[in-house]
Amino acid sequence: MAFDRLIENIIKMQNPTVAGLDPKLDYVPASIKENCFARHGKTLDGAAEALFEFNKALIDALCDIVPAVKPQAAYYEMYGWQGVKALCDTIAYAKSKGMFVITDGKRNDIGTTMEAYAAAHLGTTDILGKNIEAFGADALTVNGYLGTDGIKPLINICKEKDKGIFVLVKTSNPGSGELQDIKLETGQTVYEHMGKMCEFWGKETYGKYGYSAAGAVVGATYPEQLKELRTKLSHTFFLVPGYGAQGGGAEDVKNAFDKNGLGAVINSSRGIMCAWKKQGLSKEDFAAAARSEAIRMRDEIISTIGEIKL
Amino acid sequence: MAFDRLIENIIKMQNPTVAGLDPKLDYVPASIKENCFARHGKTLDGAAEALFEFNKALIDALCDIVPAVKPQAAYYEMYGWQGVKALCDTIAYAKSKGMFVITDGKRNDIGTTMEAYAAAHLGTTDILGKNIEAFGADALTVNGYLGTDGIKPLINICKEKDKGIFVLVKTSNPGSGELQDIKLETGQTVYEHMGKMCEFWGKETYGKYGYSAAGAVVGATYPEQLKELRTKLSHTFFLVPGYGAQGGGAEDVKNAFDKNGLGAVINSSRGIMCAWKKQGLSKEDFAAAARSEAIRMRDEIISTIGEIKL
Repeated sequence: MAFDRLIENIIKMQNPTVAGLDPKLDYVPASIKENCFARHGKTLDGAAEALFEFNKALIDALCDIVPAVKPQAAYYEMYGWQGVKALCDTIAYAKSKGMFVITDGKRNDIGTTMEAYAAAHLGTTDILGKNIEAFGADALTVNGYLGTDGIKPLINICKEKDKGIFVLVKTSNPGSGELQDIKLETGQTVYEHMGKMCEFWGKETYGKYGYSAAGAVVGATYPEQLKELRTKLSHTFFLVPGYGAQGGGAEDVKNAFDKNGLGAVINSSRGIMCAWKKQGLSKEDFAAAARSEAIRMRDEIISTIGEIKL
Repeated sequence: MAFDRLIENIIKMQNPTVAGLDPKLDYVPASIKENCFARHGKTLDGAAEALFEFNKALIDALCDIVPAVKPQAAYYEMYGWQGVKALCDTIAYAKSKGMFVITDGKRNDIGTTMEAYAAAHLGTTDILGKNIEAFGADALTVNGYLGTDGIKPLINICKEKDKGIFVLVKTSNPGSGELQDIKLETGQTVYEHMGKMCEFWGKETYGKYGYSAAGAVVGATYPEQLKELRTKLSHTFFLVPGYGAQGGGAEDVKNAFDKNGLGAVINSSRGIMCAWKKQGLSKEDFAAAARSEAIRMRDEIISTIGEIKL
C-alpha cells in the first residue's frame, strides 16, 4: 500500500511532515519571474513557468529532509491549463527526487465520474491501447459527501497501483464545524461518521504498518478532535493541515500520532514557502529559508513526539 | 446575477436543459480520432485535440436549441494538462456560441484556497497587473462540506463578475444517502441542512427572477427530495443531474420547477453525447443524433411542465 512507502520515507528521514506547494506568483522572487516573463510576456505561460521554477528550487532544497510534497491544485488552476501543466511537471520532478506526492484536489463525484478522476490523478488513461499517466501522484485528497460509490473507484486504483487517498473528515478552517460538528440522531458528529466511513472504505487495504489506503484529513487547528479521531480510527492514516500559517503548533499536532510516532503527516505550506519573511531574509533566499524552516519544524515535532520507530 | 442570463436563455429557447460535455475517447468517431492521432501520435495531445473537435461538433449541433453546457472537469483531467486545455478551449467555444457554461468541478477547500479556485474558474488571475481569465465559466459546481468560509470567496466573485455556483445538496448517485440522508439531532437531514445553507449563502445575491447566485445540485433520481427541496428553498436555482443514462425521466424532474417552469435546469450527458447508439445510427452521426435527442428531451420536459414564462 502507498502509505507504506510514505511511512518508510518518514522513518528514514525521522520527519513526519509534508511541504505544501501552493505557489502564488507573489511568492516567486524577481530573478525567476524576470526570466520567465521576458520569454513569454505577461501571460499565463510566463506565470506557469515561474511557478515551476520556484517549485523546483523548493524541491531541491527539501528533498533530502522532507519525505513528501503536497501541491494544491487550486493554485495551479488559477494559472489556467498552463498552470495545470506546471502541476504535472512539479509532480514528475518531485517523484524524480524520491518524494511522495499528494495532489490536494479534494475531488469528488458520482462513481462513473470518479473513475475518471481516479485515472487522472492516480492511475493511467488508455490512449488506443497505450496506458499513459496523466498526473501520476501517489495520493489524492478527496471529499466523501457523495458516499461509497464516489469512493470505490479510488480504492480500486489504490489496490491496483499502490496509491492512497485522504478523505476530508475534520478540516482546519474556522467554519468547518458548521456541518462537520453537527450531531446526528445517533449522537455521533458528522465528522465522526465520515471518519468511520474511512475505516470502512479502507478495510481491505491494510499495509505492512497497519494503515489502510483510505486516509483522512484532520486539521491541526482542532487538537481535541485529532485526539478523539486518532483513538477511534486506528487504521486510518492522517494528513494534518493547519500547522504554521493557520495557527497549529507541535503541541496541537502531537495527538495525531500513534505511540510509535506514526499514523500522520503534518503539512506546512505558507510556513515553508514564505519562510524568508519570518527569517528577515530577502525573497531571493526563499529556498534556503524553506529548508531551515523545514528543519526547525521537523525538530520541533520530533522533540515533542520522540523518535519515530516501527 | 448569472442565473438571470441562464433563465433568459431558457425562456427564449423554451428549454430548461443543459448538455453535459463529459467526453471519453471512446465516444469520439474514427474520422476525428484518425486526424488527431495522425498529427500527434498516441499521446494525450492527440486525445485532447480529438475531445475538443468532438465538443465543437456537439456545440455547433446544440447551440441554437440548448441554453447551456456543463463540461465535467474529470473527463478532461483524465487526459492530463492537454485535456485541461481542451476544457479551456471548450468553455471559450461554447461562450462564443452564446451558451451558458457550467464547469462541473465540485471544487471545495478552505477560504484562502477557495479564493484561488474562484479566480481560476469564475474570475481572473492577476499577472503583473494584467487580469487574465484562466477558465472563465459562468458557473461552477462546488461542495459545501467545509462550511461558509469555503463558499464566501465564490459568492464574492459571483457578485463582482455576475457568476453563479451550484452547491451539492442531494446528489444523483445510488449511495448519496449514506451521508446526505442521515438525520441530524434537529430532525433535519444532512441534505436539508446543506440546502438551507444555500439559501443562507445566496441571500444577498437575488437576481431579477428571485433566484440567488448560490444554486444547488439535486438529483433527478430522487424525485421526492426534489419536490421537498423545491418547496423549502425558494431562492435556490437547481442543477438537476441524473436524467437519461442515470434513470431519471420527465415525470421525475417536473418537481424541480416552480409554477412558471423556472428554477431548474436539467442535465443530460451520456444521453445526448451517445444518442447515436439508442437511435441505431453510426458513431459518425453523433452530432445529428445529439441534436435530435436534445429536441426530444426538450419536448418531453416542456410537455410535462408546460410553457416556461415569467
